[in-house]
Amino acid sequence: ELQGFVNSLHPADIAFILESLPKTERQMIWRLVSAAFDADVLLEVSDWVRESLLEAMNRQDIMAATSEMDADELADLAPDLPPDIVTEVQKGLTVEERARLIEAMGYPDDSVGGIMDFEMVRVREDVSLEVVHRYLRRLPELPDHTDQIFVVDRQDKLLGTLSLSALLVNEPEIEVRDVMGTDYLSLSPLDTDSDAANAFERYDLISAPVVDGIGRLIGRVTIGEVVDVIREDSDEQALSRAGMQEEDIFAPVAMALRNRAPWLMLNLCTASIASFVASRFEDTVSTIVMLAFLMSIVAGIGGNSGNQTMTLIIRALAVGRVTGQNLWALIKRELLVTFLVGLMGSIVAAGFSWGISRSLPIALVMMAAMIANMLVGACVGVLVPMTRARFGKDPALGSSVLLTFATDSLGFLIFLGLATIFLI
Amino acid sequence: ELQGFVNSLHPADIAFILESLPKTERQMIWRLVSAAFDADVLLEVSDWVRESLLEAMNRQDIMAATSEMDADELADLAPDLPPDIVTEVQKGLTVEERARLIEAMGYPDDSVGGIMDFEMVRVREDVSLEVVHRYLRRLPELPDHTDQIFVVDRQDKLLGTLSLSALLVNEPEIEVRDVMGTDYLSLSPLDTDSDAANAFERYDLISAPVVDGIGRLIGRVTIGEVVDVIREDSDEQALSRAGMQEEDIFAPVAMALRNRAPWLMLNLCTASIASFVASRFEDTVSTIVMLAFLMSIVAGIGGNSGNQTMTLIIRALAVGRVTGQNLWALIKRELLVTFLVGLMGSIVAAGFSWGISRSLPIALVMMAAMIANMLVGACVGVLVPMTRARFGKDPALGSSVLLTFATDSLGFLIFLGLATIFLI
Ligand SMILES: [Mg+2]
Ligand SMILES: [Mg+2]
Ligand SMILES: [Mg+2]
Ligand SMILES: [Mg+2]
Ligand SMILES: [Mg+2]
Ligand SMILES: [Mg+2]
Ligand SMILES: [Mg+2]
Ligand SMILES: [Mg+2]
Ligand SMILES: [Mg+2]
Ligand SMILES: [Mg+2]
Ligand SMILES: [Mg+2]
Ligand SMILES: [Mg+2]
Ligand SMILES: [Mg+2]
Repeated sequence: ELQGFVNSLHPADIAFILESLPKTERQMIWRLVSAAFDADVLLEVSDWVRESLLEAMNRQDIMAATSEMDADELADLAPDLPPDIVTEVQKGLTVEERARLIEAMGYPDDSVGGIMDFEMVRVREDVSLEVVHRYLRRLPELPDHTDQIFVVDRQDKLLGTLSLSALLVNEPEIEVRDVMGTDYLSLSPLDTDSDAANAFERYDLISAPVVDGIGRLIGRVTIGEVVDVIREDSDEQALSRAGMQEEDIFAPVAMALRNRAPWLMLNLCTASIASFVASRFEDTVSTIVMLAFLMSIVAGIGGNSGNQTMTLIIRALAVGRVTGQNLWALIKRELLVTFLVGLMGSIVAAGFSWGISRSLPIALVMMAAMIANMLVGACVGVLVPMTRARFGKDPALGSSVLLTFATDSLGFLIFLGLATIFLI
Repeated sequence: ELQGFVNSLHPADIAFILESLPKTERQMIWRLVSAAFDADVLLEVSDWVRESLLEAMNRQDIMAATSEMDADELADLAPDLPPDIVTEVQKGLTVEERARLIEAMGYPDDSVGGIMDFEMVRVREDVSLEVVHRYLRRLPELPDHTDQIFVVDRQDKLLGTLSLSALLVNEPEIEVRDVMGTDYLSLSPLDTDSDAANAFERYDLISAPVVDGIGRLIGRVTIGEVVDVIREDSDEQALSRAGMQEEDIFAPVAMALRNRAPWLMLNLCTASIASFVASRFEDTVSTIVMLAFLMSIVAGIGGNSGNQTMTLIIRALAVGRVTGQNLWALIKRELLVTFLVGLMGSIVAAGFSWGISRSLPIALVMMAAMIANMLVGACVGVLVPMTRARFGKDPALGSSVLLTFATDSLGFLIFLGLATIFLI
C-alpha cells in the first residue's frame, strides 16, 4: 500500500521525501521505490543523501540504475560510486558516450562543463524546414528543455540556432539558413556555472549551446540545471555566512559537528582575542565599572552596521556590479550613510549611558566610540569582501569572521582607550 | 557614438547599466536610449530605478512606451505610473486587454496572478496536428517560453497540454487528444509565487497553466518570471537577515538611511537592555573585574551558534521541509549538536579564562555558562523562526534580533548570575 503510494509520486517528490527522513526510515522507503525510478531519484537527491541510498543498494541495482543514465548524469554521479562499478558501466557504453563521459568528468563541478548535457538536436543549414520536420518525426521525443535546435556544419561548427518558434511559424519550403538565429549566446565549458546562470537570468534563456575554442558545438546547458545552480548558490551563500557548508536539518549529527565546530572555534578565538584586548584596560574598568556594561553595546552596533554594508557588497559582487573602479565611490557612500545613522544612534546611546552612569563624560565617550566603531564596520564591510573576491575566495565566509573580529577588538580598544584618555 | 553603443545592447544589459549608475548619469544615459527599447528597459529595471527613469520622461514618451506593453506588463508598471496615464492607456486597449489588465491588477504582487501572463496558444482537442501546424504558421512568432500549447474546450476549460515535442515528433494526421498530456501541473492565481517557483524547480518546468476555480484557463506562468522570483526571494532573505529591504549600493543615501536606521535602532535598544541586565551585577563585576572581559565571549558564542541553527531552520522552512510534526525531533537534534560542539568549545574557553584570570572557579563558571547560553541559542534558533512562519511573518527578519537579544541578555544573566552564586 505504502509502496503503491510512493511509486505513484514524481521522482522529484520521492527524492524530497527521502531527504526529509532520518537514515533508517529513508533506507526503508528507498527499498520500496521501484527500480524504474532509481536513476531519477539518485540524480535528484542531495549528495549527503545519495551516499546513504547507494549504501542500501546491491551491485546489481546500482548497475541497472546507472546503465540508464546519460553521460553527463553518470559524470555527476561517478564520484559517489564504487570505482569498479564506474569501470564496468564505462565498458557498456558506446564509443561516443564514453568520450562524452570522459569529457564531462574532466570539468570542475561548478563550471559550464559540469552542468552541460549532450542531448542536442543538430541540423544542417541548407535543408528546408520540411526536412527538419521529417527528421524530428523520427525521434521518439525531443530532449527535455528543447527550445532550439542547433545548426552545424560538417565539422560540427555551430552556425546558428533554429528556435522551435521559427520552425513552427515559417512555411516548410523555407531553408534553415534563412530563419536561423545567428545572434545567440554561446558558453565556453570553462565559464563558471554562476556566470552562465546570470546570463540565463538576464536574457531569459531556456537553453544555450556550449562551444569549444574553435567554435565546435560540444554540449548545451538548460534552464533546469541553471535553476539548481541559482538555488545552490543562494543556499551556499546563506550557509556560508553562518560558517557552514551544505547541511540539512536531517543530516547525521556527526556531519553536523564536523560542519559547525571549526567556525565556532574560530569565532571563539577571535572573541578571546577581543576579550584579551579589553582586559589590557583592567585598571580603567575597575575604576569605572559602568564601562564594562557599555563596551558590549559599542562592539555590537559596529558589527550590525558593518553587516548591513557587507550584505549589500556581497550581493553586488555576486551580480558583478562592483568593480575596482567604483571602490572609492562605494566607500564614500557607506561612510556617509554609516556616519549619519551612527549620529542618530549615538544620541540614543549617549542618553542610555547617561541614564545608567549619570556621567556626561561617559556619555560623550560612548557617542564618539560608537560612531568611530561603526565607521570601522563600514570600511571592513566594503574592503574585506572585495579583497577576498579579488583573490578568488568566497566573499561571504571569511568576511563575517573578520568583521566581527574587527568591530569587537577595535570597538573595545576605541571605547576603553578613549575612556582611559578622557575619564581617568 | 555612446548612443550607438548603448542602443546596440540588449535591453536587459541597458537596464543593468542604468542600475549601476548614480542618478544624474543614469538619467543622461537613459535619454540616449532609443524609444524602441523604452518599454523593455522600464520593465526590466528595479523599482527604485524605474522611478528615476520615469521622472526623466515626458508624458508622450511614457504613453508611447506603455502602449506597446501587454496587459500583465502594464499591471506590473501601473503602481509607478501617473494615474491619468494609466486611465488614458486603458482607453486605448481592446475590451479583452482591458479585462486582462483589471484581472492582473487585482492579484497581489507575490501571487501567481501577479506573475502570470496571457500569451497562451489555445487549440481544441478534436483537431489533427496538421491543423495545429497550419494555425501556428499564421502567427508571426510563438510567445516567449512556449514549450506547450493549451488544449481547451468551448468554455475555455483546460483539458490538457500539447507539448511542442509531442507536436513535432508525431505524425500530422494524429489528433490532439491522442497525444496531449493530461497529467500536467496547474496553478491557481492565488497560490504564492514562491510555491510556484518551488514547483517549477522540482519538476523542471518551463511554463505552467493558471486556471480559475472552475477549471478555466486564465493565464500562464513561465520560467523567466520564476527565475526572477527565486532570485528576489533569495535577495530578500539575505537583506532581511541584515535588517534591510531592497537596497542597492547605488540607491540614494536618503533611501539608505530610511532603510537601515530602524534596524540599527532596534539593535541598539536590545543591546542596551542586555547591558542594563548586566549592570545589575555591578557589585560582582567590581569584585572580579575579569568577568567583564569574559562575559562578551559567552554572549557572542551563543549568538553565533544559535545563528547556525537558525540559518538551517529558515532554509528548511523555505522549502517546506519543517512541519509541526518534526518540531520536537529538530529541537532534540539541535540541542544535541549544540551541546557536543559547546562541550568542545567550552574547554578551549575555560583554558583561556584560566589563562587570563588564573582562577579555576572562573574557568568552570565560564564553561557552564557557555554551554548553557549555546543551548539557549539553539532553542531560540529553532522556535522563533518556526513561530514567526506559523503566524505568516517573515522568519528571517525578526528572528535574528530576537536571537541576539536572547543570547546577549541571557548570556550576561547566566554568566554573571553563576559567578555571583559561586564566586562571591
Ligand atoms: Mg529500490
Ligand atoms: Mg552538488
Ligand atoms: Mg556552485
Ligand atoms: Mg554534469
Ligand atoms: Mg539530462
Ligand atoms: Mg515519431
Ligand atoms: Mg529575466
Ligand atoms: Mg529614451
Ligand atoms: Mg516575492
Ligand atoms: Mg504581473
Ligand atoms: Mg510577457
Ligand atoms: Mg508565418
Ligand atoms: Mg530541478
